[in-house]
Amino acid sequence: MKCRACKNKAVIRLPSHNSAFCPECFDRFTLSQTKKAIDDYGMITAGDHVLVAVSGGKDSLALWDILTRLGYRTTGFHLDLGIGEYSAESRGHVEAFASRHGLPLVVESLRDSVNGSVTDIAQATRRPACSGCGMSKRYFFNKVALATNATVLATGHNLDDEASRLFGNLLHWHDEYLAKNRPDLPAISGLAKKVKPLVRLTEKEMAAYAFLRKIPYVVKECPHSIDAKQILFKKVLGEIEAASPGTKHAFLFGYLDRISRWYPEAPGEQEEEEAPTGRCEQCGEISWTPVCSFCRMKEKVARELSRQEEFR
Amino acid sequence: MKCRACKNKAVIRLPSHNSAFCPECFDRFTLSQTKKAIDDYGMITAGDHVLVAVSGGKDSLALWDILTRLGYRTTGFHLDLGIGEYSAESRGHVEAFASRHGLPLVVESLRDSVNGSVTDIAQATRRPACSGCGMSKRYFFNKVALATNATVLATGHNLDDEASRLFGNLLHWHDEYLAKNRPDLPAISGLAKKVKPLVRLTEKEMAAYAFLRKIPYVVKECPHSIDAKQILFKKVLGEIEAASPGTKHAFLFGYLDRISRWYPEAPGEQEEEEAPTGRCEQCGEISWTPVCSFCRMKEKVARELSRQEEFR
Repeated sequence: MKCRACKNKAVIRLPSHNSAFCPECFDRFTLSQTKKAIDDYGMITAGDHVLVAVSGGKDSLALWDILTRLGYRTTGFHLDLGIGEYSAESRGHVEAFASRHGLPLVVESLRDSVNGSVTDIAQATRRPACSGCGMSKRYFFNKVALATNATVLATGHNLDDEASRLFGNLLHWHDEYLAKNRPDLPAISGLAKKVKPLVRLTEKEMAAYAFLRKIPYVVKECPHSIDAKQILFKKVLGEIEAASPGTKHAFLFGYLDRISRWYPEAPGEQEEEEAPTGRCEQCGEISWTPVCSFCRMKEKVARELSRQEEFR
Repeated sequence: MKCRACKNKAVIRLPSHNSAFCPECFDRFTLSQTKKAIDDYGMITAGDHVLVAVSGGKDSLALWDILTRLGYRTTGFHLDLGIGEYSAESRGHVEAFASRHGLPLVVESLRDSVNGSVTDIAQATRRPACSGCGMSKRYFFNKVALATNATVLATGHNLDDEASRLFGNLLHWHDEYLAKNRPDLPAISGLAKKVKPLVRLTEKEMAAYAFLRKIPYVVKECPHSIDAKQILFKKVLGEIEAASPGTKHAFLFGYLDRISRWYPEAPGEQEEEEAPTGRCEQCGEISWTPVCSFCRMKEKVARELSRQEEFR
């Protein structure tokens, strides 16, 4: 198997591109695919300050690495979810990466902020752990982006993530989600623009990139993350991709070519109506309601924990 | 397990409807779902004469049975594909059904009309067997509809067929096919309207209906029909349906709710531009070109067979 670009020995085969690459050319391929996504969707411009949401997994660490190598000004942000060894290991990888590359990093602790664990949040809100976790992430993303004057928030979602999300949204025709099923969500008043620069790259490609770049990352999945449906959607799209390489790409980008025709109100305009109305009375962060949803969740957790205390 | 309607013992469970039915209530359910599809999409009106395309499989025979029971005026049409025992058995079931119910039936033989088999067609056209077969069916549907003064042509496509077709079209965003991915295609000059009254009913429901109504049908699949992709699409949609009953229905009908917004040109208008321009110089049937594609195929088969003769 020879590298498509330089004819040296290839180490990775990419059937969807009908290609194989040697380590050096695959590295160039990954950077150029990221740059293409950034340029095609006007995700980041030279003057931007990019806050990179880094979980400690392969995608987000690789994203931080790539954006830095492409010359963008970045700050890492890690939310320590306080989920035992999983979170300790994740945080360790993020901190090690930042210090190895001399990059600024902001770390917040969910457990410290809420005075409770993800499990406490799930119990108090009577919702799945992922629900409280997702809401907390959005809260901290906005808070830290503001605090660091970041103009763009970048996340490590890859082609597999985005295609399976699209598939799920199309199966039930969730118009609201479909309108936002894009790799670039414009800035709305007071909040940073949100972008997904890895949208052209697959899960497998990101794992290969992290491996070849020798980036240590947390391999295990979050113990709470068992979104069975997303796993099923990824599995079936994987089967289809194996039968017809390139389908995942055609599926997602074919949709993105049509999204402005089908959902002509740009998400920026839509969200403008839903723009935050002011500041939270309790934490002072940007909020849609007098008390923001994160502070309301904190109150619920506090009530739940004191209720448990009473019964002890 | 009790029947949702009458509380007698149920024989069929329909998770997507969160229901189970006894034979009598399931029969009523099948008829009412068909009637609802017919009414929702204005498929058939009282004065229509419906040509039912009957292959000899469960769906098309059940469709003919249901349409007759709903009181529509029907004529059956069967195209004998001349594929050995498979076709002999299929034709036998269709003829037996027609004579048992005293219904008019038109049978045409592909082998007689083309002077060759489906395999000869595939060889002569250098295309998959299904391609020549599909084209021949369209030719005979139009020809027989005209000859019998049928105003509507009904086919037995069910929910599984339509949902998997939609899925395949969405994966690659075939706009032209997506615009026509609907259970009703209006009449265009000289040609009958095309409808799919079983669109609300699943494969499994149709098999149960045929079983309960004791309709003998050909169980084996056409030996040429190995559209691997359609089989894969049905398989993965089946897995998703098992995990979330009702998804197939939500997927297809959610799309149908949006089709006129996304593809605002009604297919009738689109096809008007592509309406047949006259009559075929050779067979006299309606045609888009001076010699229709069926007659051109016949010529190719004739040439191929005489070429083979020379080399013998």
